[in-house]
Formats: sequence, C-alpha cells, structure tokens
Amino acid sequence: MEPSTSVFSHHISSQFNENLEDVNAKFMAMGGLVEQQVANAIHALLDTNLDLAVKVQEADNNVNQHERDIDEALTLILARRHPAASDLRMVLAMSKANTDLERIGDEAAKIARIAQALSEDGESPRGYMETRHIGNQVRIMIREALDAFARLDAEAALHVMRADADIDREYSSAMRALMTYMIEDPRHISRVINVMWVLRSLERIGDHARNISEQVIYMVKGLDVRHTDFEQIEETVQGKSKPKND
Amino acid sequence: MEPSTSVFSHHISSQFNENLEDVNAKFMAMGGLVEQQVANAIHALLDTNLDLAVKVQEADNNVNQHERDIDEALTLILARRHPAASDLRMVLAMSKANTDLERIGDEAAKIARIAQALSEDGESPRGYMETRHIGNQVRIMIREALDAFARLDAEAALHVMRADADIDREYSSAMRALMTYMIEDPRHISRVINVMWVLRSLERIGDHARNISEQVIYMVKGLDVRHTDFEQIEETVQGKSKPKND
Repeated sequence: MEPSTSVFSHHISSQFNENLEDVNAKFMAMGGLVEQQVANAIHALLDTNLDLAVKVQEADNNVNQHERDIDEALTLILARRHPAASDLRMVLAMSKANTDLERIGDEAAKIARIAQALSEDGESPRGYMETRHIGNQVRIMIREALDAFARLDAEAALHVMRADADIDREYSSAMRALMTYMIEDPRHISRVINVMWVLRSLERIGDHARNISEQVIYMVKGLDVRHTDFEQIEETVQGKSKPKND
Repeated sequence: MEPSTSVFSHHISSQFNENLEDVNAKFMAMGGLVEQQVANAIHALLDTNLDLAVKVQEADNNVNQHERDIDEALTLILARRHPAASDLRMVLAMSKANTDLERIGDEAAKIARIAQALSEDGESPRGYMETRHIGNQVRIMIREALDAFARLDAEAALHVMRADADIDREYSSAMRALMTYMIEDPRHISRVINVMWVLRSLERIGDHARNISEQVIYMVKGLDVRHTDFEQIEETVQGKSKPKND
C-alpha cells in the first residue's frame, strides 16, 4: 500500500473516521513518547546524568496512562462501530502494538534505574561502547517500526525485522565480551552485570520493535507472521508465495 | 461472580455460545501447556536432564501455534458476532492474556536452553535452591491465574497479584546473594550468571501471571487496573471504593 494521508477517508461514517483518526493520533503520540524515553535513558546512563535518570522513571507513569487511554478508545470503537476487515485488523494490531510500546517504556525505566544507581555510585562510563552502539540501533528500529505503522508499509516493516536479527547477533557477541572481561578482572563484576542488564533491556526493546513490525504486516497483508521464518515472511510480503508457519 | 459452568449460557445465539466456548477451551489448553513447559524447564535444569531440556525447546512451536489459533478465533468472533459489554471484555482480556501465555512459553524455552548448555557442560546443580523455590511459586501463580480466569474470580486474581509482590522481593534477595557469591569466588562466574538469567526469567513469568490476573479483574469488574497501587485494586475489588490510577 502506498503512503497516504487518506488512510481513514474510505469510511461512509465520518464519526468512525474521526474515532480511528483520534486513536491513531494517540498511538503515534505514545510511540514518540516511548522513543524519547529510550533515548533519554541511554543518555542518562552514558552521561551519568542523575536528573535525567530520575526524569525518565517519573515519565513512565505518563507512558502507562497513554496505554490505558489507547486501549479504552479501541474498546469503544469495537463496541460501537463494529469494524470489519482492514479496519478490524488495524484496531487489533494497534491493541497489540500498544502493549509492546508500553513494555518498551518499562525497559527504558529499567535502564534509567540502573543509570541512577551507577550515577549515585559515581561510576565513570567505561565499557559502554556496546551500549551506545546497540542503543542507537534500537532507537532507529523503534522509529522505523512506527513509521511503517503510520504509512502501512510492509516493506519498511521487513527492514525492521532484518535489523532485529543483527541486534541479536551483536547482543550475543557483547555479552560474551563482558563475560570474558568479568572473569579476567573480577573487581568490576557488579558494574559489568549492570551493563549486562542494560544490554538485555536493549535487546528486548529490539524484540518489541520487531513485534510492532509483525503487526504492520498483519494490517497490510492480513497474515499472522509471528513465529515464522524471516525468509518466508520476505517472500510473502514481496508477493512470491504464501507463508508456512513453523 | 460465582464459579459457574454456565458462564456462556446467557446468549440468545447458540452459535455465539459455541464460538466463545471453543476459544475458551483453546485458551485453557494453551494455559495447561504453558504451565507444563515451565514445570519441565525447571526440572530439566535442576535434574540436568538434557532430553527434557531439548523437548521443552521443541514444544515451544506448539505454544506458538496455540497463540495464533486463539487470536484467529478471537478475530472471527469480533468480525462476525460483534460482542458487547462483558462478552467484549472477555474477548479482549483473552487476547491480552494469550500474549502473556506465549511470553511465559518463551521464558520456559530460555530456561530450557540454559539447562541444555549447563547439562552439556556436565555442571552439577549447585546454588539452585532459590531457583527451585521461586520456580515452584511461579508455577502456582500460573495455575491460580488460569483458575481465576476460568472461574471469573476477582478475589483469586488479587491473590496472584499479592504473590507477585512476594516473588519480586525474593528475586531481589536471591540476586544479591548470587552477586556476593560471584565476587567472593569468581571461578564460577559463568555458571552463576546463567542461574541469574534463569531467575530473571522466573521473575518475568511472575509478571505475566500478574498481567493475566489484571485481565480477570477487567473482565469481572470492567476496570483497567494496570499500573495501579495494589491497595487501591484491593479496595475496588472488595467493593470499598473506585480505583485511582497512578
């Protein structure tokens, strides 16, 4: 489907259009907020910025409130408008993606808690190269997944899924490096473990961005591609065959 | 609401009853399967049972298939039957809880992967007391959350949420103990880190069981109690006041 500003304009009921547009706007605002939370959490950690670390944890309430509002709006649409076909898929996809966004927010808050602890200990930011690198990549993934969602762009969603496979590889390699470092110099065990938790959170954020991308493909193609080989998904989205689930 | 076998009998359309009963049966089968996966993963780890560890990882495909089937059935009900009020809440709650069950399955598979690695290394099961203890508790939480769901029992759901707070405390204390152990005797760093990942997975499973319980309260009371203080939820469920979200 082509990017279009008229995604919502095909309905006979203008009330329905308005409801869907409203909740879509809320969903995109939630996405922007969550993306900022991840960016701030990583900055708080790398710059040992205590104020920012506290701010991210406080703003998590705001993320949670967005989640509730969006789910409430989606439930009202289902109860009153009985959406069908692609509209129903959009409502359901948004409901699933809403949960993923909230979980990304949780991981950002976890990173901020660790940033606060390390900053209070006066620890200098060493061994953070992997965090910076993987952190930048997952931020791009969130942004691209949300863009794909807004534009109903299955190809862009595929691109995010490909990036998630890269993150998983880099995560494993970073974890091995940290483990070796810890064994060679056990004095820094406690700090290295904290960096490991941060990397784990970043890897989880990548998974959630991938989940959101799977929902984009569900909206656009009407296919549930969760737990499916990437190559099969790629062939399906690019119109070469039907997916075979594993 | 009292436990009842006639939860589905109030609908005029017998077709609707049948659809809801079918998907409910699938959901409960999924729950039983996931509960078994967690039990097997913990056994595989504690008994260094390589075969069982492999079996759990293979069976994760089965869990994933259940997730897809349930979501497909729920989407059909929404598209064809336009459920309202408590029926709509049940469909939406099942959709959210379905995701949580699948994630519990993922955590069980992660534990099984670690069990396999440790078993291939010929590591003897030491330092596993916390794993056994917290493992037993989260298994009980899953069972109780599913029972609460089946019986639409908000009080039982509250009980699960209370248990999750206990798990979180025991998890933190176990992690501190493992950290100390590692610093005192760095020869076992690699194995202790693996035990930490297992504990983290168990703690996440407890969170998912709590999420399922929140959906029970949503079904029964029509209230979204996510991100709400436990005391406020308790007062609301026990009919003392309205919840104030944080």
